[in-house]
Amino acid sequence: MNKEMFDKLLTNYAILAVEVGMNVQEGQKVIIRAPIESVELVRKVTDHAYKRGASVVTTLYDDDYTILSKYKNGNDSSFDEVDDWLIKGQTEGYKDGAARLAILGRNPTLLKGIDPSLISRQAKARAPINKEMMKLVTDSHSQWSIISYATDEWAKQVFPNDTLHEAVNKLWNAIFSACRVDNDDPIAEWNIHNKNLQERSKWMNDIQFDALHYVGPETDIVVGLAKDHVWEGGSGVGNNGITFNANIPTEEIFTTPHKDKVDGTIVATKPLLYRGTMINGIRAVFKDGKSVEVTATEGQQVLLDMINEDEGASRLGEVALVPNSSPISASGILFKETLFDENAASHFAFGQSYSKCMKEYEDANTVDDLKARGANQSQIHVDWMIGSGYMNVYGIKDGTETLIMQNGEWVI
Amino acid sequence: MNKEMFDKLLTNYAILAVEVGMNVQEGQKVIIRAPIESVELVRKVTDHAYKRGASVVTTLYDDDYTILSKYKNGNDSSFDEVDDWLIKGQTEGYKDGAARLAILGRNPTLLKGIDPSLISRQAKARAPINKEMMKLVTDSHSQWSIISYATDEWAKQVFPNDTLHEAVNKLWNAIFSACRVDNDDPIAEWNIHNKNLQERSKWMNDIQFDALHYVGPETDIVVGLAKDHVWEGGSGVGNNGITFNANIPTEEIFTTPHKDKVDGTIVATKPLLYRGTMINGIRAVFKDGKSVEVTATEGQQVLLDMINEDEGASRLGEVALVPNSSPISASGILFKETLFDENAASHFAFGQSYSKCMKEYEDANTVDDLKARGANQSQIHVDWMIGSGYMNVYGIKDGTETLIMQNGEWVI
Repeated sequence: MNKEMFDKLLTNYAILAVEVGMNVQEGQKVIIRAPIESVELVRKVTDHAYKRGASVVTTLYDDDYTILSKYKNGNDSSFDEVDDWLIKGQTEGYKDGAARLAILGRNPTLLKGIDPSLISRQAKARAPINKEMMKLVTDSHSQWSIISYATDEWAKQVFPNDTLHEAVNKLWNAIFSACRVDNDDPIAEWNIHNKNLQERSKWMNDIQFDALHYVGPETDIVVGLAKDHVWEGGSGVGNNGITFNANIPTEEIFTTPHKDKVDGTIVATKPLLYRGTMINGIRAVFKDGKSVEVTATEGQQVLLDMINEDEGASRLGEVALVPNSSPISASGILFKETLFDENAASHFAFGQSYSKCMKEYEDANTVDDLKARGANQSQIHVDWMIGSGYMNVYGIKDGTETLIMQNGEWVI
Repeated sequence: MNKEMFDKLLTNYAILAVEVGMNVQEGQKVIIRAPIESVELVRKVTDHAYKRGASVVTTLYDDDYTILSKYKNGNDSSFDEVDDWLIKGQTEGYKDGAARLAILGRNPTLLKGIDPSLISRQAKARAPINKEMMKLVTDSHSQWSIISYATDEWAKQVFPNDTLHEAVNKLWNAIFSACRVDNDDPIAEWNIHNKNLQERSKWMNDIQFDALHYVGPETDIVVGLAKDHVWEGGSGVGNNGITFNANIPTEEIFTTPHKDKVDGTIVATKPLLYRGTMINGIRAVFKDGKSVEVTATEGQQVLLDMINEDEGASRLGEVALVPNSSPISASGILFKETLFDENAASHFAFGQSYSKCMKEYEDANTVDDLKARGANQSQIHVDWMIGSGYMNVYGIKDGTETLIMQNGEWVI
């Protein structure tokens, strides 16, 4: 890819983030969180957001180096302290209606070798201060979107056998392709894509299956769905009434499983990268919603620590269906970044459920209402891939099974 | 300067910012505001701040490109909007005791050609939200410091006749030299330097001159000093009791003139860069504290607009004494950055006075108390250089004149 072509595609990508991802409105503020390496993309997003009428565009840059510096140089007591003032400031910004763009690109194994208890203490110190902001985001108080930037460290880990230049080039090609920006009219493409995902979700919502039955090699599991669950996919509508795309790319439709109604055995079809550790060969046996027997051929202890983090961590909070022929799956690339990898295969998530995947969640006065309907609660939300070209998925309604995916492809 | 030497000097500079500039305390948070180009320096400051025991180091990066993007692409109504959420967040951080480091390096003529009314509207939108934060800083609620980074755009304007590489190299050499980091023990050097400045301030404070009399080519002016003024210089002590150096470099001792007692004529000895415009050949006649006749051979209209911004803008808020032999003056470089240029020559400032340059300013219940003692109030504070090797300065006490600077050098 020559410089001119790269610049054109990066511009397309920035426009997509502003128009389709955040759908920035006239007079709206924009808050961008981005890796320090992504200045070139941030500048293009900023230009275009102002052209669309944004009132103030502010970027908060993250730097892997300084994150690591704290773990290398910080005092013990510093690991119970976080930048509360900045989190509170951002919370005010979102409350007042700012749109949010997160640009991913972190080194996937940045924290490899760091004492896990320090990482956990930092996460615990952040959680209570972060809570209000995360609720504004997960409730879609205003529009938010996640895109990515091919940083050197990320590219090296996706294409370890290439030169750095080749690796970055390949990762950009993969990103542009997965995000449908490598064609004449990316916005028209996204309109069609969103419509397809929404029609599929509507079909599933109209039927309201009681459960899904997954059958494949070593896999036979029934996943009950939460009472009055909602399938979501493609663009959504924020509480402010504005349409946006939270994830670019996205290929999934997803909903809320019942936290107490999962029974059977499932094996993962792709590795899971969690806190810098690669977890391979996951096999899990579920009983009454809880994973009672969990093993992995690599990284098992990290996996077990993860599902023991709290009561909800060993139960499912999300099921998502992605066809095996999705462009990201077809690329055959393991991106080591959930934003991409979760769109390569049907997946489950351990942990927290999404309120918006429940009917009338705005009226659920307490979390208990949602829990009573089966929505899982946890401090974690971790996706892991279980789809493949050998997987059949059936919808169960009043005891009758309907084939909805055959050999990993939609048949509805 | 080879790479190894540069790295060593940049490390010295970072350590100086942490230990002498901010004097970071164990458990203290640090907020850094920096140009996006200064990542290398920010990383070194971050490393060293954590080593000194900082609990959280957070950097907010500014990007000239995106500042300009708003002026080029923004809607008209956007110029009355600012990132209030971020200013409020920072205010909370300083209130809670965070130390502050500002790294300068902006393109000195970034806003050249931009409609001044838009710049003024942005400044006016920011002022009320910024007010609380600026008060925390000017009152030294906790430690703060300003250093700089030789960005490409800045270096090009300081050394326009050199290649970019040469210009950056020269600017770094000038910064390292002016900041005394190009020797074996910069911290010991700064301890001596601070002691010298403080001894000079103490001598002036003990005498409490009624006025200063400046005599030089085309200059003959008497500047009354505010009642119970305080000379400051070198390190100061924050309201939290911790010593710090607000400016690196610093060569000046400075105090509060009486806003109604300045009479005579003065000419500037160096150009003034204000909002991207070069102002040359300033000549001002003062009567009862007000500049009643102000001319410039270049940029006069910008100067007149500036001193008409509010009632206090045409009166003096600061006088500073700097010997003509100061290392920055001796370098002969016009840095086009006040942090440096104000340390090259004795100077005046139009506009706001410093509370800390008044005795018992903490007990002054209202601004009116300070005003009654002669301290000027304004939305602006703009330094301009009036010192030279031809200037004599006398202190006046009870009608008697004492020579304190002869041909620009201290004689006390």
